[in-house]
Amino acid sequence: MPEKKKKVFISDWELKRMAPPGQKPVIPENAIISPLSRDWLEYGDQGTGHQSPVTSHQSPVARHQSPVTSHQSEGRGHAEAELRRRIAETGRKLYALGFVPAADGNISVRLCGGTVLITPSGASKGALAPADVSKISMSGELISGRKPSSEYLLHLCVYEQRPDVTAVIHAHPPVATGLASAGIALDKPLTSEMVIGLGIVPLADYATPGTEEVADSIAGFVKNHNAIMLANHGVVTCGADLETAFQRMETVEQAAKITLVAEHLGGGRPIPPEKVKKLEEIRRRLGL
Amino acid sequence: MPEKKKKVFISDWELKRMAPPGQKPVIPENAIISPLSRDWLEYGDQGTGHQSPVTSHQSPVARHQSPVTSHQSEGRGHAEAELRRRIAETGRKLYALGFVPAADGNISVRLCGGTVLITPSGASKGALAPADVSKISMSGELISGRKPSSEYLLHLCVYEQRPDVTAVIHAHPPVATGLASAGIALDKPLTSEMVIGLGIVPLADYATPGTEEVADSIAGFVKNHNAIMLANHGVVTCGADLETAFQRMETVEQAAKITLVAEHLGGGRPIPPEKVKKLEEIRRRLGL
Amino acid sequence: MPEKKKKVFISDWELKRMAPPGQKPVIPENAIISPLSRDWLEYGDQGTGHQSPVTSHQSPVARHQSPVTSHQSEGRGHAEAELRRRIAETGRKLYALGFVPAADGNISVRLCGGTVLITPSGASKGALAPADVSKISMSGELISGRKPSSEYLLHLCVYEQRPDVTAVIHAHPPVATGLASAGIALDKPLTSEMVIGLGIVPLADYATPGTEEVADSIAGFVKNHNAIMLANHGVVTCGADLETAFQRMETVEQAAKITLVAEHLGGGRPIPPEKVKKLEEIRRRLGL
Amino acid sequence: MPEKKKKVFISDWELKRMAPPGQKPVIPENAIISPLSRDWLEYGDQGTGHQSPVTSHQSPVARHQSPVTSHQSEGRGHAEAELRRRIAETGRKLYALGFVPAADGNISVRLCGGTVLITPSGASKGALAPADVSKISMSGELISGRKPSSEYLLHLCVYEQRPDVTAVIHAHPPVATGLASAGIALDKPLTSEMVIGLGIVPLADYATPGTEEVADSIAGFVKNHNAIMLANHGVVTCGADLETAFQRMETVEQAAKITLVAEHLGGGRPIPPEKVKKLEEIRRRLGL
Repeated sequence: MPEKKKKVFISDWELKRMAPPGQKPVIPENAIISPLSRDWLEYGDQGTGHQSPVTSHQSPVARHQSPVTSHQSEGRGHAEAELRRRIAETGRKLYALGFVPAADGNISVRLCGGTVLITPSGASKGALAPADVSKISMSGELISGRKPSSEYLLHLCVYEQRPDVTAVIHAHPPVATGLASAGIALDKPLTSEMVIGLGIVPLADYATPGTEEVADSIAGFVKNHNAIMLANHGVVTCGADLETAFQRMETVEQAAKITLVAEHLGGGRPIPPEKVKKLEEIRRRLGL
Repeated sequence: MPEKKKKVFISDWELKRMAPPGQKPVIPENAIISPLSRDWLEYGDQGTGHQSPVTSHQSPVARHQSPVTSHQSEGRGHAEAELRRRIAETGRKLYALGFVPAADGNISVRLCGGTVLITPSGASKGALAPADVSKISMSGELISGRKPSSEYLLHLCVYEQRPDVTAVIHAHPPVATGLASAGIALDKPLTSEMVIGLGIVPLADYATPGTEEVADSIAGFVKNHNAIMLANHGVVTCGADLETAFQRMETVEQAAKITLVAEHLGGGRPIPPEKVKKLEEIRRRLGL
Repeated sequence: MPEKKKKVFISDWELKRMAPPGQKPVIPENAIISPLSRDWLEYGDQGTGHQSPVTSHQSPVARHQSPVTSHQSEGRGHAEAELRRRIAETGRKLYALGFVPAADGNISVRLCGGTVLITPSGASKGALAPADVSKISMSGELISGRKPSSEYLLHLCVYEQRPDVTAVIHAHPPVATGLASAGIALDKPLTSEMVIGLGIVPLADYATPGTEEVADSIAGFVKNHNAIMLANHGVVTCGADLETAFQRMETVEQAAKITLVAEHLGGGRPIPPEKVKKLEEIRRRLGL
Repeated sequence: MPEKKKKVFISDWELKRMAPPGQKPVIPENAIISPLSRDWLEYGDQGTGHQSPVTSHQSPVARHQSPVTSHQSEGRGHAEAELRRRIAETGRKLYALGFVPAADGNISVRLCGGTVLITPSGASKGALAPADVSKISMSGELISGRKPSSEYLLHLCVYEQRPDVTAVIHAHPPVATGLASAGIALDKPLTSEMVIGLGIVPLADYATPGTEEVADSIAGFVKNHNAIMLANHGVVTCGADLETAFQRMETVEQAAKITLVAEHLGGGRPIPPEKVKKLEEIRRRLGL
């Protein structure tokens, strides 16, 4: 993927290390920074108790340079309160789609200061209030709120390996989870959207929920995949922001439905290999 | 299940018998009491015409000791009016999910005073008003409201055997009911959520609805199962509160959907037996 | 069905013929009259231009004697405006369930004066206003409003044969329509709700929509069935009121879903014949 | 199709060429003009900067002569602002139906002045604001707004070949897309609605999305079909107005669902050929 080398992603941690406290870091021209880094540069650590080294009007990175989606850029910024609201809203959307029945699933967002907002243990994702969301450190300690989701290690594992990711969703969309319980990965190029939006969705080995096993089971896939199926369990997606992680979860279930229908009717006819290559080029060009 | 013996559940009736009227019962340290008992201790029999022996500020049992879910503990208490409102709301949720088409299904909640709120016969569960809910005694006599659901004996059977249960739901989620009409129980450990949340869901023999046969058909399963499938009929779930019984109904249908998808695609690959044991340990630890 | 003979249904027309204009007809003790007849007795022909022979306070038939559902009896009566509102609301409910995509389906209600309200041709049932509903005579002439549904002959056929029916719905619930397109009737007693609520749902031969063929194709079934499947077309249900006809449509699709799931998983296990007889007795007792 | 020759469709461009600027064009008695042409005659180019040659009260074509649906004719006209609102509303409806998960799908409407409103690239269709919609020329140049959908060539291809069409929708309804990924066209006459509403829905060869290939793949079908399936991709529908294009998308997915169910249960039983001919006659008579 030589195209990817043209641009350099600078993670939140790297960004902070690039400049001593109180000074403006120099951002290379070819740099991509996360929406949260940009917010940190602009607004400081509002809500986390830290202070940004630069004031709002000094933002060294122009908005149009960043890989932010239109959805994310609409708001006034990503202060913690707004992210809590989005987690609750995403929970309602996942519930409405039938992806998190009962108290299933969990959602997290990484804050700039190295902490993580994560849904609490045992609550319905369809009825969360922003204040219900817990905050933990990257080492898994509870900073505020109720007991976090028992799958917090799964979320931290993704954040550790993927500095470009600020949101992780774990859910149980029924058709994809059915595939994952039949030992089937989404690795057939049945539609162009699957290939462009997700590439191959691998199937991680079964691991006991709420233990370190789960993080171990996905560790080998996290670097190269934004969506992973968990055998007998569900699906994990991640993204540069919460909306992207959510849309990837939708795409996984859509791909699973299409696979199910096609298999029923005699089997899917995959896109030919040379055409798949074209789709993978589009994928790289879009930076997905 | 030796872990379970550490804690002792004291039913509403036992609690009332533990202290003469007007006096505070002594609650053992290892006791678990129902949310309704706790409310009775705190608020008395508001809505049922009885009086609690203790006033609100004398509550002998601290809130954090009780196995109440966050959903239940948010409210100001469980007076009858609030429980009627919750039954109507649960009806709307079940209808929106497609679990109670036409006038199918019934919902009940046990009140502290030994009476039972139950949905009336022949009404759509999607359009109930709190005042539509009937009240019956534990012997099935109508106390107030319209003719109760013809399945009231099914509900009373659960309450009789399970002092820890204060809510019962009978519904017809279409995929689970399809399984129940094909003679298939949910007894394969296909997902971790099934095993932790429900364990095995057994299939009770067919029984004519609205007769004592139905209660008889489930009698052997009620003690050890929170969800039971009824052959050619539907599903029954119960719980310490209405939200828990509702979430169990959602989990049954989710498990049924996953089973259906996995069976379509060559058959589910169950979780290995030694891993199922770990899940059952989690289940016991959580007291589910 | 000897139980049914105990009660006698008096149709709207018979009722009118029983008494000269301006006088109170004598209603036999064992009579059942339609909700519309009752309204006619109480309110007269408001909205249709005719006059009731009796005033409101002289209603010779007590409310509790009539087979009206609670839903119907809640309102202040069934004047035409209210019935138009209900048709529009039922259209929205059918659309939300996915039973009438595009401009599919049609709904009618028989008014007391021998006229029929029916949805117009070519409109989405999900977005009807009460004023959009057309009115036709029993001979199919347009009395007011836009061109009626091209399936008006189907509706009139049901009203002609069934004086007890005041509402007819034709829709295309997708699973039931799939069965109807595979030549499969709902004639296996897979669930108790099917048997009690519908009995056998027969499959009428294919007929070209919008022609007299459709009425002919169901003519042999209308007398003994409240729900009929139309080969390569859809489903027709009817009832003493609109809510009942709607609930029967829901029950047909639920039965179809259960059949589909059960067939997928090795085939449904029907309720044994001697138990089906018990259900049919319940059905007769409830007068369904 | 000799019936069709009775009426003559006059496209927006032809209409404009029929009269010199500032003068009233003479509309032949047997002419059909598009809703947008009618609006242009009545209101001029409000929103596009051009001027109509005639004022509102001089409209030479009576409303009742035009093939407009009731939905379209209800509004006060089709100024650009109203069409933007309808595009956003249609996006929400498609999303609610599950036809455009993630940022899938695109919607366009042709304006009278020869420009096209089209949804922007990369946005969720479930959350569009009217102002989010882009405007392009018939040669694909961006006139206003954000980067248009990468599938704009697909839309322009339809408009070029079909002067009677003013709206195009591309979506991914899951069951139809599953069929399209199994290489199956909707070419069996399983229900009368399919035949009357759509005729045969052909399956275009796979083509890489966002390239000219897609337009090429459908070019041979556009003239004779209002709905086309795209192998491994999705579905395209078009219509004289947006509501019609939307309803055709609904009908495609309904037909796909019915096909899937019928195939599961032993295979669909097609309508006999001589009866299909009758349906095709109805189709021609209705001008579909």
